[in-house]
Amino acid sequence: MNLQDALASQGETISALLDRLLPPVEGPRGRVVEAMRYSALSGGKRLRPFLVRESARLFDVPEERALRAGAAIEMIHCYSLIHDDLPAMDDSDLRRGRPTAHVAYDEATAILAGDGLLTEAFTVLGDPQTHDSAAVRIELVRHLAAAAGAAGMVGGQMIDMSPARAHLDLAGISHLQSLKTGALILFSCEAGAILAQAPDTARKALVGYAQDLGLAFQIADDILDAESTPEALGKPTGQDASLGKATFVGQLGIDGARVKAVSLAASAAQRLDLFGQKADLLKEAAAFVVSRQS
Amino acid sequence: MNLQDALASQGETISALLDRLLPPVEGPRGRVVEAMRYSALSGGKRLRPFLVRESARLFDVPEERALRAGAAIEMIHCYSLIHDDLPAMDDSDLRRGRPTAHVAYDEATAILAGDGLLTEAFTVLGDPQTHDSAAVRIELVRHLAAAAGAAGMVGGQMIDMSPARAHLDLAGISHLQSLKTGALILFSCEAGAILAQAPDTARKALVGYAQDLGLAFQIADDILDAESTPEALGKPTGQDASLGKATFVGQLGIDGARVKAVSLAASAAQRLDLFGQKADLLKEAAAFVVSRQS
Repeated sequence: MNLQDALASQGETISALLDRLLPPVEGPRGRVVEAMRYSALSGGKRLRPFLVRESARLFDVPEERALRAGAAIEMIHCYSLIHDDLPAMDDSDLRRGRPTAHVAYDEATAILAGDGLLTEAFTVLGDPQTHDSAAVRIELVRHLAAAAGAAGMVGGQMIDMSPARAHLDLAGISHLQSLKTGALILFSCEAGAILAQAPDTARKALVGYAQDLGLAFQIADDILDAESTPEALGKPTGQDASLGKATFVGQLGIDGARVKAVSLAASAAQRLDLFGQKADLLKEAAAFVVSRQS
Repeated sequence: MNLQDALASQGETISALLDRLLPPVEGPRGRVVEAMRYSALSGGKRLRPFLVRESARLFDVPEERALRAGAAIEMIHCYSLIHDDLPAMDDSDLRRGRPTAHVAYDEATAILAGDGLLTEAFTVLGDPQTHDSAAVRIELVRHLAAAAGAAGMVGGQMIDMSPARAHLDLAGISHLQSLKTGALILFSCEAGAILAQAPDTARKALVGYAQDLGLAFQIADDILDAESTPEALGKPTGQDASLGKATFVGQLGIDGARVKAVSLAASAAQRLDLFGQKADLLKEAAAFVVSRQS
């Protein structure tokens, strides 16, 4: 199966699973569940669950277990998008080609929908139905909480909102990326190894892959923000420049950024050599991440 | 030890533990950690950790384990206060006698501090240092996520923000309370039984106690909101009436509400008879909850 087909079919599988895992819209609390569903079932590349599934496949972990962990991670990703888009944060109106949650609903509902998705992710990981041992489930919880918390996404978003953000140098931007988007991408790849209780060498190879991939992903994002259109991207473009944020493109130039992204993608792929052909889709994903148009 | 001394000494212990568990204020993400600490270390009754510790003591669970679970629950409680106080929600300026987080910092930082505390709670429960088995830790995670999520606090806050809120009848207000504040109080009491892997009869007795206590607590809150002053309470009063919210006081009258709260406190205490003298502090706590002045 090629990468495009794999991503497309996996996207549908994850959406169907999220639809099953999220609570039904009913009763007086229905509005917040509706907003959670609106945001979590709005498409997107579903890259993170894909990384979980493919990293788990390296160790022959049954797909069903990987999918549930992937769904939990996607909930965390969607929560972070809702909160990042809020008026007090990036104040974005458009996401995945649709009005953001606080526009489609209202600010209070959007804040609560984010809180709800963040919490629901832990419900999913805690559920005994995953057939994972308690030891595996609690390790997933611990790593997911670390990736999402003040030492990960929350800390990254704080830096992204800080006055110092405008003047970050290359090391500062890279650090920001490693927290804001890198930590969850890293955990997505590590999750496969955790599910399999894989040996350290394999786990380290995946960590190296994820770090290169995450950085390449962010550089590609900066390039798209500078060069693409809202129509192609499904969200506003040119935001970093208009907000005066330092970016990889600003630091390296557009050509320099492109060279860096491609070289990181190649390095990411190389780190998976020890897994042989089983890692082909993950290697393709690294190339895709820097060549994507949206 | 009497209840007041027990609450005071336990409050200090929990604050010291939260201080140890929360990340240090450092680096460019420092501001969000500062806001997390500002809100989590601002005092408060620490009733929920007290309920964990006392319910755990019924089964001779080592105090250290109960304290960690209690700290995680207190983080969730503090996160919910930060988000409930936001301009888009209750728009409150005062909490525990100090400016709320979005006033002391800013809205973005307050949203992130709430997200950070919510996430950190799961880091604490996931930590192998608790000496709890993986099975116990994952059960705590699962129950805490359920209490905090759309079927618990998030759902309750959604109802509290809904247009239907003004016209709730007694059953509706009770349902709202069971989600918004009841679920976490219930989990606080159940946590002791989970830590001990206690038998069903004991667990059910604690659940009954917690349900009565939670409802009594909320009715007492409504009475204080109607009768107390911001100085005594450390937060604005008369809010329910000015926002046109249906309350227990509105439904039952002030005397009716008082009678109901006292009778629930008595019922709560009775449910713990099977534990003998070991439950004395929990019984006193039920009486305290309805007689407190703040």
